[in-house]
Amino acid sequence: MEIEVKQSVFAENERVAAEIKRILAAAGVVALNLMGAPGAGKTSALIQIIHRLPDCGVQVIEGDIASELDTLKLRAMGVRAVQINTGGACHLEASVILRTVREMTLEPGYLFIENIGNLVCPAEFEIGEQAKILVCAATEGSDKPYKYPLAFEKAGAVLLTKCDLKEFVGFDTDFFRAGVRALNPRAPLFEVNARTGEGFGPVAAWLKELAAESTD
Amino acid sequence: MEIEVKQSVFAENERVAAEIKRILAAAGVVALNLMGAPGAGKTSALIQIIHRLPDCGVQVIEGDIASELDTLKLRAMGVRAVQINTGGACHLEASVILRTVREMTLEPGYLFIENIGNLVCPAEFEIGEQAKILVCAATEGSDKPYKYPLAFEKAGAVLLTKCDLKEFVGFDTDFFRAGVRALNPRAPLFEVNARTGEGFGPVAAWLKELAAESTD
Repeated sequence: MEIEVKQSVFAENERVAAEIKRILAAAGVVALNLMGAPGAGKTSALIQIIHRLPDCGVQVIEGDIASELDTLKLRAMGVRAVQINTGGACHLEASVILRTVREMTLEPGYLFIENIGNLVCPAEFEIGEQAKILVCAATEGSDKPYKYPLAFEKAGAVLLTKCDLKEFVGFDTDFFRAGVRALNPRAPLFEVNARTGEGFGPVAAWLKELAAESTD
Repeated sequence: MEIEVKQSVFAENERVAAEIKRILAAAGVVALNLMGAPGAGKTSALIQIIHRLPDCGVQVIEGDIASELDTLKLRAMGVRAVQINTGGACHLEASVILRTVREMTLEPGYLFIENIGNLVCPAEFEIGEQAKILVCAATEGSDKPYKYPLAFEKAGAVLLTKCDLKEFVGFDTDFFRAGVRALNPRAPLFEVNARTGEGFGPVAAWLKELAAESTD
């Protein structure tokens, strides 16, 4: 019974995600789903990314269980950001994104959707994105791909954040990279530091390529 | 429909958790539910705790979506550890713990159950524990209580790990502490470093007190 309900939830979610994709494509919007564990540095990475897309329209949907701390941070930078608070839900679903997108004034460019901090469930739900960006902090340890395979498998790109702290936590880059590659041979793996902005040039280049592909 | 199923899942889970509690109490076992985000340092903290409980029986149930990396680490130390792989499930439920406990040879002492790395869902499911230990790394940032309130609210104790890295991530201890206290006025907050073992003395003292209370 629980499993049947779950299956029908997934099917309905995919139907709604396809509808979001149509709406965004018609408006010239490329959507990215930012996933990662709590405190992986999703918002800090997003801020660095936005700095490197100065001539592109950028809108943000911030997903959190509670609080609007990240939305306030983005608005203070002049970024158009909308907050979704899920109450208790551990991931964003397409239905809530569809409602939100319908209320926004969409402009051509990028829509970044920051998912709930969770390395598990968000990977199971499409929300109309062109690609998923998986944000993983070096401080979480190099074994994350082995322990949370689905998120890495579904990633369009992997951002390894807090790389400046690798040496303090004994991060094993080869072990991490081998884990990512076993699950996902193609997704680019970007090593970054969101405090200094190091490594974000190639991330922005990848995003521009993605946008170019989507308008082909 | 989804909500009704969820309610009945919670009710059934609580019934089974109560059964686990009876079994553990009869065997003189004090169970702790270790919760925290991926890479918070749950296993590293557990290893430090076990070192400080040398004359107590200690058993461990390791919960992971995939891999048995942590169980192998514990077994290498001579700790009796059992692995549960949930496949995809983002939290442990009482039913799987009941099955596991029934297959174990229980000895008086502590049973540490390391939950799936997830700061959201594990807080919703009792698994027969005496108390929940919430492990949160300073590298996750000081805003975690504000963003993931339930886990902090339900904690019997909060372990702030990776405290040696506070200065590198601009961790605001007062902001963190205020957030914890607003949700949970009583739970002790232990600041630790699992790489050096710093700060674990008071954690062991708290665990011994908990065990003494439970046999009163």
